[in-house]
Amino acid sequence: MSELPIRFEPSGRTAHVLPGSAVLEAAALAGLPIQTPCGGEGTCGKCRVRFLTDPPPPLDADRRQFTAAQLDEGWRLGCRHELAAPVRLLVPAESVYGTTQQILTSDQRVNIDVAPALRRRFVKLAPPTLEDDRDDLARLRAGLGTPGLHVPVELLRTLPTLLRDSGWEVTVTTLDDGVLNVSPGRDPASPLGVAFDIGTTTVVATLMDLRDGRELAVAARLNPQVQYADDVVSRIRICIEQPGGLDRLHGAIVRGCAEMIAETAAKARVAAADIGEVVVAGNTTMQLIFAGVHPGPLGVIPFAPGFAQGLSIEAAVLPLGIHPRGGVYLLPAIRGFLGGDTVAGLLATGLAELPGPTLLIDIGTNGEIVLAKAGRMWAASTAAGPAFEGARISQGMRAAVGAIEKVVIDGDVRINVLGDAPPVGLCGTALIDAVAGLLRAGLVETTGRLQLPESLAGTPLAARLRGEGTQLRFVLAEGPDGEAVALTQRDIRELQLASGAIRAGIAILLERAGVSAGDLESVFLAGAFGNYVRRENALRIGLLPDVPIERIHFVGNAASMGAKLALLSQPARERAETLARATEHVDLSADMGFQMKFADAMIFP
Amino acid sequence: MSELPIRFEPSGRTAHVLPGSAVLEAAALAGLPIQTPCGGEGTCGKCRVRFLTDPPPPLDADRRQFTAAQLDEGWRLGCRHELAAPVRLLVPAESVYGTTQQILTSDQRVNIDVAPALRRRFVKLAPPTLEDDRDDLARLRAGLGTPGLHVPVELLRTLPTLLRDSGWEVTVTTLDDGVLNVSPGRDPASPLGVAFDIGTTTVVATLMDLRDGRELAVAARLNPQVQYADDVVSRIRICIEQPGGLDRLHGAIVRGCAEMIAETAAKARVAAADIGEVVVAGNTTMQLIFAGVHPGPLGVIPFAPGFAQGLSIEAAVLPLGIHPRGGVYLLPAIRGFLGGDTVAGLLATGLAELPGPTLLIDIGTNGEIVLAKAGRMWAASTAAGPAFEGARISQGMRAAVGAIEKVVIDGDVRINVLGDAPPVGLCGTALIDAVAGLLRAGLVETTGRLQLPESLAGTPLAARLRGEGTQLRFVLAEGPDGEAVALTQRDIRELQLASGAIRAGIAILLERAGVSAGDLESVFLAGAFGNYVRRENALRIGLLPDVPIERIHFVGNAASMGAKLALLSQPARERAETLARATEHVDLSADMGFQMKFADAMIFP
Repeated sequence: MSELPIRFEPSGRTAHVLPGSAVLEAAALAGLPIQTPCGGEGTCGKCRVRFLTDPPPPLDADRRQFTAAQLDEGWRLGCRHELAAPVRLLVPAESVYGTTQQILTSDQRVNIDVAPALRRRFVKLAPPTLEDDRDDLARLRAGLGTPGLHVPVELLRTLPTLLRDSGWEVTVTTLDDGVLNVSPGRDPASPLGVAFDIGTTTVVATLMDLRDGRELAVAARLNPQVQYADDVVSRIRICIEQPGGLDRLHGAIVRGCAEMIAETAAKARVAAADIGEVVVAGNTTMQLIFAGVHPGPLGVIPFAPGFAQGLSIEAAVLPLGIHPRGGVYLLPAIRGFLGGDTVAGLLATGLAELPGPTLLIDIGTNGEIVLAKAGRMWAASTAAGPAFEGARISQGMRAAVGAIEKVVIDGDVRINVLGDAPPVGLCGTALIDAVAGLLRAGLVETTGRLQLPESLAGTPLAARLRGEGTQLRFVLAEGPDGEAVALTQRDIRELQLASGAIRAGIAILLERAGVSAGDLESVFLAGAFGNYVRRENALRIGLLPDVPIERIHFVGNAASMGAKLALLSQPARERAETLARATEHVDLSADMGFQMKFADAMIFP
Repeated sequence: MSELPIRFEPSGRTAHVLPGSAVLEAAALAGLPIQTPCGGEGTCGKCRVRFLTDPPPPLDADRRQFTAAQLDEGWRLGCRHELAAPVRLLVPAESVYGTTQQILTSDQRVNIDVAPALRRRFVKLAPPTLEDDRDDLARLRAGLGTPGLHVPVELLRTLPTLLRDSGWEVTVTTLDDGVLNVSPGRDPASPLGVAFDIGTTTVVATLMDLRDGRELAVAARLNPQVQYADDVVSRIRICIEQPGGLDRLHGAIVRGCAEMIAETAAKARVAAADIGEVVVAGNTTMQLIFAGVHPGPLGVIPFAPGFAQGLSIEAAVLPLGIHPRGGVYLLPAIRGFLGGDTVAGLLATGLAELPGPTLLIDIGTNGEIVLAKAGRMWAASTAAGPAFEGARISQGMRAAVGAIEKVVIDGDVRINVLGDAPPVGLCGTALIDAVAGLLRAGLVETTGRLQLPESLAGTPLAARLRGEGTQLRFVLAEGPDGEAVALTQRDIRELQLASGAIRAGIAILLERAGVSAGDLESVFLAGAFGNYVRRENALRIGLLPDVPIERIHFVGNAASMGAKLALLSQPARERAETLARATEHVDLSADMGFQMKFADAMIFP
């Protein structure tokens, strides 16, 4: 039996199929997978195609979806028709697999095609006949339009019986070209995936429905590695110096992630074993330790890690509790200390596509900065230190119950405490508020020195400045037993170091790109900390470049958002690989000007 | 005990063996596996070698096979001698089982580039510097020139330490794009693979050095599934009808193959776990059962099997004892009963490239026929039935000890019996000899009827025709207790059926291609049976089309040769996929003319 040439417009591609093949099959062969959210029932009308030649007689299902005029023009439901003659078909873009979702990033909305690596499709195969005696695997490959479909032999063993018992109607779950599962009949369940943002301090997991892009459940917790060490460098040192150190850190994060997967699954009332894919965005060290690869080389110049490109790991190798034939994808990194989290941020903000010069700043334990200008990108990582997360600040703490999170200084001091509790410390935002307020009030000089100007003598503020020399401090809150929370001279020095490192990094990138701060069209603040910082105070202490305040935008947890995009969209994942390769790494430690700029940046504006 | 250097001529290769080793073993080590169709009994004379130095004293078996002059020249039976001193041996080409890089097809030799899927490469990587701070994986990918290199995470975990400890010099073993192993420094060992020809009756395994294409060891044995049933159809029925039937047959063949792998590895003194790939050519049923996929659909029209395209299976799934990250590749099939063995035959004979019309016939339990004409190919499978392997013949048997393997009828009957034993039955070649002889003598009519022409009354031949009606028979051998082996009227009918099916299949293919028998430039006979049949007798009974005898060529075990080529050459493997797709399947059961032609073909020429 000879094959029919089916020509597709507007692409002009031609597929050759046996007479009687479904329109869907021919389209898939031509690289135009048609969406069938209703599973080919003819009820959703999403698979509309137009026969430019020889339209078949309309079916009842066609009559329900199209007007008489449309029927006359040749519009039909792709899922209901078979091909009996060589025809030309128009497949409109909206019929092609990949549904469009909107993702919130700052003030703009980014359209994302939901076209995940993990898919679940119902297929109706033509049973074998004497004229079409192809083998079962070839039939399944053609039905899915995936010539390279890989069916693991343990599934292949079940295929002949399954196909025949189910009347050649099955639901196939695939990850890339690999088959996870084949089940009889129509399985209406959506494919499920979990996106992880593994921060040095915090881990966020989002369970997603990969058919429509919905978030089904979210879990967040401290990175369990925090029990061993706070920052990246200390964790690398544990792996290098302690026997079994890597195993301990690797085990802790994988167990933690498995618990979070179980937690989100329970919230959404699904089985963890039905989750087919996990996508991870984290800094390079977090991704290395998650994969179980020794991060030692990141501890020594030239910081060349074990892997940096996007990595796929078989789920069976990591005890995460998801489907044993599922997969884990780790986002690509740019360089040693510019990891998958930064690339995820690029993906989420669409930085490369913005017309004007734009800066993306993600302040966490490390500070990552990316400057984009007309599609070119420069990136740097600064060892900001964990000051913004409370470390090295005498009464610093994370944003938890009892933390002062906001400080306003206007004649006296007003504070806001998290969790309706007595204040016991201050978190990063309050640290910036306090120093910005003290700078404005004149209690801190631009050099960072705490001192009482004569004009404030006898005011309530003066009463809060206590001690001398290394004990000099400004009291933010009194408690029943005396001072509850105070800011010391040393704390201000720590903030100068942290803020100065970021500011100097920004200065180097601006210089590299030939852009002045005033040229910046937008400054995007990402990360948990970035989302709570008060812009005017961050500007006051010089953490951010001197731009009009309305150009500063919060873009949320960009790393988590990027991980979700990579989970939802195979093209987004490919884009992440491109972005990672295209971004120029600016090594601050090798930049002769950095120390100079750092020293400058230590002075408050 | 020190090893003896044994030098082989004309190749000049030297093998080192322990004193007392068999000549066969030394030859196999030198890549010259010597054929022993009689199983090393010293009776077939196929294993002849010539001692160029220090010939051992001749044995009785030598005296039976060689003239005194030949014995003086140093000719001996390779299967009967052990090595006690360093000697030079001449191994004539016809004694070698298969050949290494040159492949005999009819009169021409095909050169094959050794370019296997399994490779082992030494790479020297540049250590990371500040200017080149790529990650280890990117460095390895670039060093091997394989951007898509897949390093399983368990190996990736060892990579950073391994690369640094080995001074960035490693040996990498890859199968396609997947890494099997990374070892420090330069590992001189060759990559190893085993090619299997899994026949319904016989299994042949060849362990190969994939660097130079040498055959290191060969093992052959009965397919262990024979204990359950002789032919393909009965084995399919076992899988359908018996609970656990498939598991039993699958387990038997996989265990058998594992034992053969261990056997070849032991012969070649390598570890089975160092074998990285196995390639399998077998008929569709054998390949399905080997993979553990139910062959049931091959038992019913339209014979659409579970898989037919070439299939890669992770070694970890099949307990063959090879490298756990190794792979198993099954050759593609054309259609239901035209399996990987036929495609392997196409590969080995280069049929598609021959200018003139050529026929390839592989007669085994089934008969597969392929006709090639100017690059186009038509293929058919005939249910020849196992008559040629002895089944359904009253005293039929395989070519084993006690089998009459040759019959000459010239006034009286002369026979040759395998294994120097009293005759107990006859094998396929003798069956054809006998019927051809009886046709020539006039004792069998072209209709197949046994009868005594008046002219032979009173001759020794007449005395051999005994019985009447259904008991009518021709006695081939007398024993001490009366008739030892006889050919019955029913046996002749079975031969008519078997031969007629093949002849009718050939006729249909010739018709399809518009070729007459006289146009055929060559007829290739493949398979164990095909290699022993006497051409003039096969022509006489009409098993082969009417061509001049010099156009009929023996091409050896083409399936085994094709499996070896696919193991040695990735391009050959891709070519197998192309050949399988390009060959037109002619379904004889659906051909209206087949029954007619079959009836015609039942009449002897």
